[in-house]
Parts: sequence; structure tokens; C-alpha cells
Amino acid sequence: MQPIRVGLMGLGTVGTGVVRIVEGHRDDLEKQVGSPIVIEKILVKDKSKSRRMTVADSLLTEDPRDIVENPDIDVVVEVMGGVESTRELILSALERGKHVVTANKDLMAVYGPEILAKAAEKNCDVFYEASVAGGIPIIRTLIEGFSSDRLTKIMGIVNGTTNYILTKMSQEGASYADVLKEAQELGYAEADPTSDVEGLDAARKMAILATLGFRAEVSLGDVAVKGITSVTREDIVYAKRLGYEIKLLGIAERSGDAIGVSVQPTMVKVSHPLSSVNGVFNAVYVYGEAVGETMFYGPGAGELPTATSVVADLVAVVKNLKLGVNGRRMFTPYKEKKLKTADEIKSKNFLLLHVDDKAGVLARITQVFAEHNVSLESVIQQPNPSNPSAEIVIVTHEASQASLNNVLAHLTDLPVMRKIQSHYRVEG
Amino acid sequence: MQPIRVGLMGLGTVGTGVVRIVEGHRDDLEKQVGSPIVIEKILVKDKSKSRRMTVADSLLTEDPRDIVENPDIDVVVEVMGGVESTRELILSALERGKHVVTANKDLMAVYGPEILAKAAEKNCDVFYEASVAGGIPIIRTLIEGFSSDRLTKIMGIVNGTTNYILTKMSQEGASYADVLKEAQELGYAEADPTSDVEGLDAARKMAILATLGFRAEVSLGDVAVKGITSVTREDIVYAKRLGYEIKLLGIAERSGDAIGVSVQPTMVKVSHPLSSVNGVFNAVYVYGEAVGETMFYGPGAGELPTATSVVADLVAVVKNLKLGVNGRRMFTPYKEKKLKTADEIKSKNFLLLHVDDKAGVLARITQVFAEHNVSLESVIQQPNPSNPSAEIVIVTHEASQASLNNVLAHLTDLPVMRKIQSHYRVEG
Repeated sequence: MQPIRVGLMGLGTVGTGVVRIVEGHRDDLEKQVGSPIVIEKILVKDKSKSRRMTVADSLLTEDPRDIVENPDIDVVVEVMGGVESTRELILSALERGKHVVTANKDLMAVYGPEILAKAAEKNCDVFYEASVAGGIPIIRTLIEGFSSDRLTKIMGIVNGTTNYILTKMSQEGASYADVLKEAQELGYAEADPTSDVEGLDAARKMAILATLGFRAEVSLGDVAVKGITSVTREDIVYAKRLGYEIKLLGIAERSGDAIGVSVQPTMVKVSHPLSSVNGVFNAVYVYGEAVGETMFYGPGAGELPTATSVVADLVAVVKNLKLGVNGRRMFTPYKEKKLKTADEIKSKNFLLLHVDDKAGVLARITQVFAEHNVSLESVIQQPNPSNPSAEIVIVTHEASQASLNNVLAHLTDLPVMRKIQSHYRVEG
Repeated sequence: MQPIRVGLMGLGTVGTGVVRIVEGHRDDLEKQVGSPIVIEKILVKDKSKSRRMTVADSLLTEDPRDIVENPDIDVVVEVMGGVESTRELILSALERGKHVVTANKDLMAVYGPEILAKAAEKNCDVFYEASVAGGIPIIRTLIEGFSSDRLTKIMGIVNGTTNYILTKMSQEGASYADVLKEAQELGYAEADPTSDVEGLDAARKMAILATLGFRAEVSLGDVAVKGITSVTREDIVYAKRLGYEIKLLGIAERSGDAIGVSVQPTMVKVSHPLSSVNGVFNAVYVYGEAVGETMFYGPGAGELPTATSVVADLVAVVKNLKLGVNGRRMFTPYKEKKLKTADEIKSKNFLLLHVDDKAGVLARITQVFAEHNVSLESVIQQPNPSNPSAEIVIVTHEASQASLNNVLAHLTDLPVMRKIQSHYRVEG
């Protein structure tokens, strides 16, 4: 009944949650793993800072070596964020045989392979359930639950901030700028929201999910990213009229050996289960050749939900410790990565065009689609009341990205084309 | 690279799926576990029967001893169903040190504790992911994903047959009898549908989920069960009017140490994610003190979805074999079971009453609720066009089952009461 000693790096939102769960669920945790779990040291930036949570002063340190080089510590729980210096600390902890639990998607999306290789070398565990979709155990599900299947599609609403913004825009008809401001006041968006609204946060998570789901090392640079900053109220109104909601979707898909991973605002059919995932909730939709359609839904962030995943990983580390099998149950990609070309990435598409309001325009425009073999599912033309032009809304059948790019380039060249107001991928 | 040898008991729908996945995903499975997985023997009732799938005659046997007593077999995969004789075969296989993967909820709900105890004694694995909710990895999620949390509520649509019937009744206004007949023709319901429509199948699954989620041994006899045979079109129309769908829900809930588990047709608010789970799909909604609201959605049955879960368990057994830790990663309940009394089981309720259409009736009826401290959320009274009585629809605030039972008894005694047409639990 030797206690398991944890070094906690970070005492922000998630770190506070970890302390609350490890202390509050002490008995349950001990009954499951057979040992008490004790937080031995907590790394903070400033010991003198006032905190929501009272922590014994002797637990706090400002020196990472008190954790990384501390021989009494068995497991390092990293919830402080950061990439470069955090990478060094984690590698240093692994070098000393300490197991690692991290919630750091920025770190894992960039240095995951290096960190996991070091862990394997040292027979250490590195678990990172909390790095994607907060309280949803999606990483376990992909590694273990679907070990028997061959997945073809993983679509995720994996960023709560942007889903909150798009939900508010859809439900209240508010503008992007107004909702962003409100989200910042409520603490749902950061003062600098770039990483969220430009889709980078979601891209990191999709690189992790694609690697696990397709068993090939997908890196952040493989993800095509577009954020939500140009989504307008008008787009959302048209989406609704056609039976869609606009969501920032991460989409990882596989056909044969070829993988495509992207993040972009997407029109999701209202009959698709992802369309009704609202506010700061996250959801990951997984399609497997054998299992078919599944979806996993829950809170994407927050103190206790994220800490739930961190502490579940800690329980897994301790169970492995008891059995002496650390570092031997981790996932290793074994497939070679092959990325889809623009000819191989296929989707349905929505386009909203502002055109001159005169005879023959629709014929001229639809001809461009026909010339590039893009067939059309639906077309709506109507006068635009706010300016002396017409609006044309087109939803295409499935077409390659290459063909769509050609269509967009040729449409721009048409004399009757005033503006390609917006275009979206369509799913569901 | 010694192959892992599997004895498959049963070559029906799920068994066929298991053969397809083990053969079709051979490379992927071998890369994950480090050994080929080979199906060595298949137990069937009648070797001469014609099958959808061609299987080498030498693989088939009608004698269970060719699997259970076969020294070449490492893992027994049981997908033939049955309880008493299957229990004996499984115990006999465990006695000989064979690991077991089963999809048999009837067996696990009744003899789970005995089988798991024998497995622990023999250092064998027994996994049963496929026994609940087909392709959804909910058992792993409860054991590992939420190991750190204390769950308070598990609500499941865990029977595809009844969900198909209720969905059709809701969407098409069809009667129970007509939809049941159609479901039988489509193969979604058995010739004898009792186990499904009376809620017994769902009750078995809820006993398993409650045991895992609350870490106390909940048995089938602890589950209060009511089926869907008395759900009428009229009930569904009223449900819709008030913003509900009627679903057969398994509900396991905990307050403090007290657990209540039940299966009954329930009015689910349309804003609740379970309300839109339609057709033969399953979903399990899990609420934890720390994680909050989560939901897991997918196919509840079918050849390949169920086989996905069976083979994922097989992969877990083989990984444990490689590490020499079989029988040491299984879940063991460690809490004492304490069941809720009728005073402790609380819910909102819907009642549809047929009453005499005369002055003072509503006052008399609402007085009965007041006398038993059941407060009302909404009341609708209207003349019933089809007979010379009035209909009263009441939705209560949260009330104990004991109070509700008292109200129902006293309502029945009222001279103005013609019939308590229906009453449902309300969720969401």
C-alpha cells in the first residue's frame, strides 16, 4: 500500500480540478488501484499568488526540478500548457523514469512522436486523454474500443469556443463580432482568440485523432485549416433555409490508404447528430467499416470535466504500475502516412454567389460547373433586395477539391460575377 | 509470433461477423497484438446446415468439448446465447485456463459475479463489451474512461427493437400492433418478442451498466421493469404536444449511497439528446459528478457492429496475454449495494386521466395531488371528442414513487374518475 506520488505541473483551471478529484474521490481511487494517490508537489509560476483553492504552502514550488528531478515522484501530471519548455521538462521526467499524464494538445500534436518514443525507450506511460474533447474518453475509444475496426471517417466538434460562437449566431441571429465579445466576457473565449477562431486548436486535436484512428502519424502540418472569422449571419440564414447548421468541423477521412484531414466551417445537415451539438459541448462522430455510425458527446473543457480525463489516465498509469507493464500498452502508429491529393478529397459544397441580375446569368454560371464535371444538387436564384444584383445559392453533388477550385477560379473570371460571397463544405 | 487460437461458440449473426472481422482485418489485428489470431474451431448446432458464409468443414464441430477441452485453444469467444448450459461451458473453459469473450447479456446479468470470480481465481480474462449496446464501447467507457468520477445517472436506450417500434409509432402515427408486425417481418423483432417488448432485455443490460457505473453488484432482480406493450398512439400524441418523445429508457440513478434501477417507457423532453435517438440505434447517457453530461451513440445490434466489440475484447485479451496480466485488469465491484426505497425514487410524472365532464372535477383531482404533497408543473383539461368525458393531462414536479402510488390509488377511488388512461415517468 505504498502511496503513488504525483507531481502536478500547473494549478490553473484543470490543475485545480485535478486536486479536487484526487482529494475528493480519494477512497474510490484507492479502492480501484490498491494504493493511495498523493499529490506530492505542485509547480506554479508564482507561489504568492492568491488562489481559489487553499493548498498547503509546502506543496507549492516554482522550480520544475522539484518535480522532474524529485526521486519521490512516480507520475508527472502536466496541465500547465506551453510547448518548447514543457517538452524539455516532460522529456527530462521520462528520462528519469517518471510516467506522464498530460492535457496538452499543443505539445502532443507537435512533439507527440518524440515524447512517445522516449516513453517507450524508458518503459514509461504517456497518456493524454484530456488533450482532445475534455471529458469525452475519445482517445481510449479510438485505441481500444475500435481496435478491431478500420475507421473511414472521424468528424469532430472539438473546439468549444467556436461552437459557442456559431451556436449563438445561429440561435440569436447575432453577428460574429458581437458574439465573440460576449464569449470573451463570459470566459469562453480568450483575450487573444486566434488559436480558437482560426481553427488551430481544432487542427491540433484532429492531428491527434487522425493518428489514433488511422494508425498513421498525422502531423499538424498535414491538416488544412480554415477558421470561422468570415462566417456571416447571411450564411447562417441560408444554411438554415436549406436545412443545415454551420459548425466548425474537424474532418479526418480515409479512402483506401489515402488520408485527408481538415478543419473548416461546414454546413451540417440538421438530420446529422453533429448538427444539434450546441454551445461549449464537444462531440466526435466516428464511422467504421464494421461498426458503422457512432457518436461521443460531452463537455469539451472546464475544470472538472477535463480533470476527469486527467485522473482517469492517472488511474491507468497506477494500474499499470501495479502490474509492472508501464510503457507497454501504448498506441504506436504502424501504417505509412499517405495524404489525399486535391483530386482525392471529395465533398459536397455550398456556394453563395452575388451576380448581375440579367438574362442568361444562371445558364452561364451553371455551365462553369458542367465544364469541370461538378454536378449540382440544388440551385436557388432570387433577387437580392439589398443591392441591385441577384443571389444564387448552389449546392453541388460530391466533387473533388481540385474541381471545386477550378470552378471557383473560373467563376471569378466571369464578367457577370460580382462576388463569390461564401463557400462551404457540406456534410450529412 | 505463436498464433493465438480462438474457439468460437456460435456461428449465427454475430459469430459470422466475428469470422469476417478476424479474417478481413487479419493484418491490422496482427500488427496491433504482435501475433496472428486464428479461429481454430467453431461450435455449431448442425454441421450440415447451409450457411451464408463458407467455412472449412474441418473447423466446424457439434461437440462443445472440442473447444472447451481443447488444449490448443487460448480464448473462447461465446456468441451462441443461452444461459444454463452456456454457464457450464464457460466455467469449464475458465477452469482449464481459457480466456473468455462473450456477447451474452442474459448470462452476464444472471451469472456474471460467479463467472468473474472463477476467472479471477484462474487468472483468466472475461470481457463482455458486446453484451450491452452492440457497437458502442460503453463498458470500457464506464470502467476506464470514468474511473476517476462518481456517476449519478446512467440512462440508456439499450434495446433496438423497442426503439424501432416507438420511433415508428411516433413518426408515422402507427399502432403498436401494426409496427410490431412490421418489425417482425423486417427481422428487427423476434417471432416471440416478449423479452424485448416487456423490457427484460433492457433490464439485463441495465443491471450490467449499473454494476459497472456504481461499482456495486446490481442484479437483474433489482431492476423494476415495465415494457412498451401498453403505449398507445394517444399517449404519443399527448407527449408530442407537450414537447416529449416516449422512449423505453433504462434508468440507473444514485443519490448518496442509494441506487435505483428501472426500465420503463418514459417521456423524454425533446431538448434532451436521448429524444432524437431513433430506429434501431442505441445510446447511453451518463452523468457524473465531475464530468457532467455525456452521451454515447451507435448501433445497438447487427452482425458487424456487435462483432466489432467482440473482436476489440479479443484484442484486449491477446494484449494481456503478451504481457502476462490476464485476469488482473478486470473490474470488481467494491461497494455495498443499497437500493432506493419508494420514498427515495423520485421523478417527474405525466398522467392522462379520463374523468366525468362536470363542475368541480379538476379541483377534486388536483386536491388529491396536494394531499400527497405532489406539486404540479402543468395541467391541461379539455373535452374528449370521442366520448362524453373530459381528459385531464397532468405533469407533476419531482415526486417520490411512494407519493405517486398514493395519488394513483386515491385517484382510482374518486367517483368522478373514469379511467387512469396512462402514466409515465418524465425525464429531461
